[in-house]
Amino acid sequence: MKTKAVFYHAGCPVCVAAEQNVANALDPGKYQVEIVHLGNDKSQLKEAESAGVKSVPALVMDGTAYHINFGAGIEALK
Amino acid sequence: MKTKAVFYHAGCPVCVAAEQNVANALDPGKYQVEIVHLGNDKSQLKEAESAGVKSVPALVMDGTAYHINFGAGIEALK
Repeated sequence: MKTKAVFYHAGCPVCVAAEQNVANALDPGKYQVEIVHLGNDKSQLKEAESAGVKSVPALVMDGTAYHINFGAGIEALK
Repeated sequence: MKTKAVFYHAGCPVCVAAEQNVANALDPGKYQVEIVHLGNDKSQLKEAESAGVKSVPALVMDGTAYHINFGAGIEALK
């Protein structure tokens, strides 16, 4: 069964570039990648924070948040 | 042809956990993952810096460095 990997970003260029590369690099046999634009979809902020997301871009995989580089703190998106 | 993805870390617990999860998540059909312990193998510091690595853990993929969370600055490893 595939695991869901969620990539959170906010539309900044560094986030979008990271998104494309990282999402494409994940094993498609293992992960189903969902991409969430937290700038446009603020209803997902709570879920992102629960998963441990503190800044974007971030990838949540197997219950752990991986912050990739640093685009913006999650507080800036509220 | 497979692309080489290099995961740089320095043996800290956050780095090792990130290493295992991220390295396992990459598409094995696309990437050949090499893991470099910069704490033990200082000869690779120059290559890591040239690739844009500023902190560990970091993943260099397709010519771009992705800093994953923040374990230690590369200066601390010299």
